[in-house]
Amino acid sequence: MTFSLTILGSNSAIPTLTRNPSAHLLNVNERLYLIDCAEGTQLQIRKFHVHFQRVQRIFISHLHGDHFFGLIGLLNSLHLLGRKEELHLYGPPLLKEILDLQMEASQTTLNYPLFFHPLSFSRYEMIYENEKVTVHSFPLLHSVPTCGFLFREKIQERRIRKDLLAELKIPIAEMQNLKKGEDYVDEQGRVFKNEEITLDPPSPRSYAYCSDTAYTEAILPFIRECDLLYHETTFMQNMAANAKEKQHSTTIEAATLAKKANVKKLLIGHFSARYDDLQPLLEEARSVFPETIIAEDGMSINI
Amino acid sequence: MTFSLTILGSNSAIPTLTRNPSAHLLNVNERLYLIDCAEGTQLQIRKFHVHFQRVQRIFISHLHGDHFFGLIGLLNSLHLLGRKEELHLYGPPLLKEILDLQMEASQTTLNYPLFFHPLSFSRYEMIYENEKVTVHSFPLLHSVPTCGFLFREKIQERRIRKDLLAELKIPIAEMQNLKKGEDYVDEQGRVFKNEEITLDPPSPRSYAYCSDTAYTEAILPFIRECDLLYHETTFMQNMAANAKEKQHSTTIEAATLAKKANVKKLLIGHFSARYDDLQPLLEEARSVFPETIIAEDGMSINI
Repeated sequence: MTFSLTILGSNSAIPTLTRNPSAHLLNVNERLYLIDCAEGTQLQIRKFHVHFQRVQRIFISHLHGDHFFGLIGLLNSLHLLGRKEELHLYGPPLLKEILDLQMEASQTTLNYPLFFHPLSFSRYEMIYENEKVTVHSFPLLHSVPTCGFLFREKIQERRIRKDLLAELKIPIAEMQNLKKGEDYVDEQGRVFKNEEITLDPPSPRSYAYCSDTAYTEAILPFIRECDLLYHETTFMQNMAANAKEKQHSTTIEAATLAKKANVKKLLIGHFSARYDDLQPLLEEARSVFPETIIAEDGMSINI
Repeated sequence: MTFSLTILGSNSAIPTLTRNPSAHLLNVNERLYLIDCAEGTQLQIRKFHVHFQRVQRIFISHLHGDHFFGLIGLLNSLHLLGRKEELHLYGPPLLKEILDLQMEASQTTLNYPLFFHPLSFSRYEMIYENEKVTVHSFPLLHSVPTCGFLFREKIQERRIRKDLLAELKIPIAEMQNLKKGEDYVDEQGRVFKNEEITLDPPSPRSYAYCSDTAYTEAILPFIRECDLLYHETTFMQNMAANAKEKQHSTTIEAATLAKKANVKKLLIGHFSARYDDLQPLLEEARSVFPETIIAEDGMSINI
């Protein structure tokens, strides 16, 4: 099952010709989830060859412009390009008002159903689930109400050992029970323990998105053990005071959280425009948490 | 004196990797006027090496997204990049409400004074003037209130013939009078007619911007004889019915207006995304008005 992330924007507030502000695209089992949507995201989607009518749900972390100014344009283009399929949007309540006002101004009635789901920003809560994945939001620590998102695969069924399928002549009708963990009794009455003839399902993968936020250990329970943690690192450690004042994080702070949460991999991004060379940020983060990688526009990561 | 236009976006509603939606940048005597501001305009400004803090006034023709979705991001970036100089914005009254709501949502107070000038959309009126230029708005015919803009140089002073300056020993104190058209009487009482010793000023140049609009001869008095007319040509003539329904124009319609208005040059743009090859649109327009050119992102025109 696909569980991969594409970076559509890796910069903080101001777009440059090589780095757009925040937007991440998560593909879970060929369903696309867009997380934040800075100005120009629709062009990034096009540039990186994503079929953007496939986006099914959009999650907006907060109402700073570098996280949502591209949303209205994307919704409009989906409309103009003939979308009929419903789209679900999760974000701060005020976001709906902002969109409605602009739709009203342009006398636009979208051709597709847009469902808006307001987020609470006050607690960890499940905001969506389907048969493959759950999505939770949790509060971050920033100058306006902001939340992170946790995407977690559901535990899949056990896998029947292919080498035994023919040998034991397991009837199709029995297979679902085996996948659910039941033992198997054949026609001769022989009992096979489930763990003898099935394999553990792959461990469920998870992706946590934390942008923007000051350092806060309050998020540790939500990001613990996740496969990939995206955590903003607007600044290097020598600007820790600045980071604190602006309620952003440093490389060392993000790496410390990654270490404490025992995540598998840390992805850093949302870099201040003052940094032309990002290698020092990567090295600083790796000094605390070696399994750190750096976000670049257009890169894809199989989680 | 500089009077030049740079195309920042030449497409209609949907941005592509080579054509952004509407935004024009007019340089009059090194003052920059931005006309419309589609999503991504701030990146276009950067791409085409314009120093965007020099933009002094922004004119928004109407509230369809492909003409203003980039405005909030541009205003925000100017703020983040430390602008202190005042900025003047002209547009539909509802635009201010849209901007205010987004500023409120992000808890942003701009570091620079932003003056909003609501447009009436009901008549030809002067909306700005300085010592070099006047700007008028005039109503267009579209599905939401929309206006065109006419930028016209003021008539400059007469120019004293350099070859006579030394010969006649004209005192500096007299020069302003000569430039204003007065005759010159020298110390011996000889009278020189103004037209003998001065040259006509260069004829004032003008640029008219008409997007979006159905064909309407009501605009002829405003665009007559202008040096450069930008008129949208969303469609070719075989889609005239479609153009009419959507209140857009065809190549033939724009060229017909250019001809009737006796303008010097016609610039066409705002092309429907259905046209990959724009040469047929150019040829069709030229069949009626040969002095037609086609807008391309990044092109500059000395008017």
